[in-house]
Amino acid sequence: MLSKSQIKYIQSLGHKKFRDETGLFIAEGPKTVLELISEMPQNIVTVYAVEKWINENIKLKGSEDFVKIDEAELERISQLPAPNQVVVIVKKFNITSFDTKGQLTIALDTIQDPGNLGTIIRIADWFGIRQIVASHESADIYNSKVVQATMGSIARVSVMYTDLKEWLIKQNVRIMAAALNGKNINEIGKITEGVLVIGNESKGIGTDIMKLATEKITIPKAGKAESLNAAVATGIILSRIV
Amino acid sequence: MLSKSQIKYIQSLGHKKFRDETGLFIAEGPKTVLELISEMPQNIVTVYAVEKWINENIKLKGSEDFVKIDEAELERISQLPAPNQVVVIVKKFNITSFDTKGQLTIALDTIQDPGNLGTIIRIADWFGIRQIVASHESADIYNSKVVQATMGSIARVSVMYTDLKEWLIKQNVRIMAAALNGKNINEIGKITEGVLVIGNESKGIGTDIMKLATEKITIPKAGKAESLNAAVATGIILSRIV
Repeated sequence: MLSKSQIKYIQSLGHKKFRDETGLFIAEGPKTVLELISEMPQNIVTVYAVEKWINENIKLKGSEDFVKIDEAELERISQLPAPNQVVVIVKKFNITSFDTKGQLTIALDTIQDPGNLGTIIRIADWFGIRQIVASHESADIYNSKVVQATMGSIARVSVMYTDLKEWLIKQNVRIMAAALNGKNINEIGKITEGVLVIGNESKGIGTDIMKLATEKITIPKAGKAESLNAAVATGIILSRIV
Repeated sequence: MLSKSQIKYIQSLGHKKFRDETGLFIAEGPKTVLELISEMPQNIVTVYAVEKWINENIKLKGSEDFVKIDEAELERISQLPAPNQVVVIVKKFNITSFDTKGQLTIALDTIQDPGNLGTIIRIADWFGIRQIVASHESADIYNSKVVQATMGSIARVSVMYTDLKEWLIKQNVRIMAAALNGKNINEIGKITEGVLVIGNESKGIGTDIMKLATEKITIPKAGKAESLNAAVATGIILSRIV
């Protein structure tokens, strides 16, 4: 049985302040947890799970603790509207540099919606992109809504937070900015190296960042909507250039 | 000033039961409201707005009522976390038939997430698709989260709820099902007539519906994510076939 202070500690990881202080975050649900255990076992600190899940997955146990909890405890430590069998405490990834040579990188200029950020991580994973760089103003990937929306892809795609402008200045690869007035993506062809910049949900890419782009690219429009959702735009562009 | 019963009446439209009973729904925020007034003025019943918005838009006033409210009233009648100047009561569209000849139609087999449904409506509008048919089990387009996620596109894209299986049987056009084991969308080319079926977020397209498809189509995968978000998949497929 979990103590009051254990429950409080796990709940506190729902707040960015405590995640930053402890270097930990929580992930939930069989799919996400199994992907994390499979891809980064060294990052798993503690697994809290109902008896059924533990019985089915005891073979996966390594050095981390497996703690049996009941449904009432699960509900108390879960961040989700529908808690699902298992909650894990995970060490944050602490990525501090990326090599942009020879591969595609996604850069996010202040993506603020957690669902969008998680969906973009999932899209990157679908298209085999391994790294995303995000401005400090972007949503926190360790937010439970983001973790959930990645559907397990958070275990395979590295996300680095940085001063995006300073970082872009140092890259010697093509920098493509998703914009409303650029070159038609149907005319661009496959790209194996470069940075694709995606802008904020309502403001798009900031002026400072846009100046650093070597080219603007655009999804052609046949109808009347003013814009596309940021995650949808990312998916459409990647489906063309990967 | 709004009476208690007026406020209660507007708030009740947040529930599907009352929307079905009254044939009305609410839409909010300058962008969505202006698109609705512009595209379907005959459907607007009442406009509740703060003084600033009314002063700026009084020229748009037709036969509908413009009611001045203050910020406190706005907050009480709004369904949004961040109320924005204006709330309108609108007559539901009551679409009962579609002609699939000569155009593309999207069919949704139980899209349950309001954000996904709204985003798909916005994507359809971007690509010039005018009609969506949805199974009865899909989310309600008149849900405020859906209306919000359409970013005004709800005014231009018609959505009809129906028994999807019975409806599909009657169509004499190609029926394309988005699946994980179909023909590569890069080899399909442009399509000007047909129905594109998108499946449920976790279960995909139901067996009964899948049997009615004349072809399965697939977005090629380069990485490891198991699937793509339903709205993202819709966007990628439309970007290829439109």
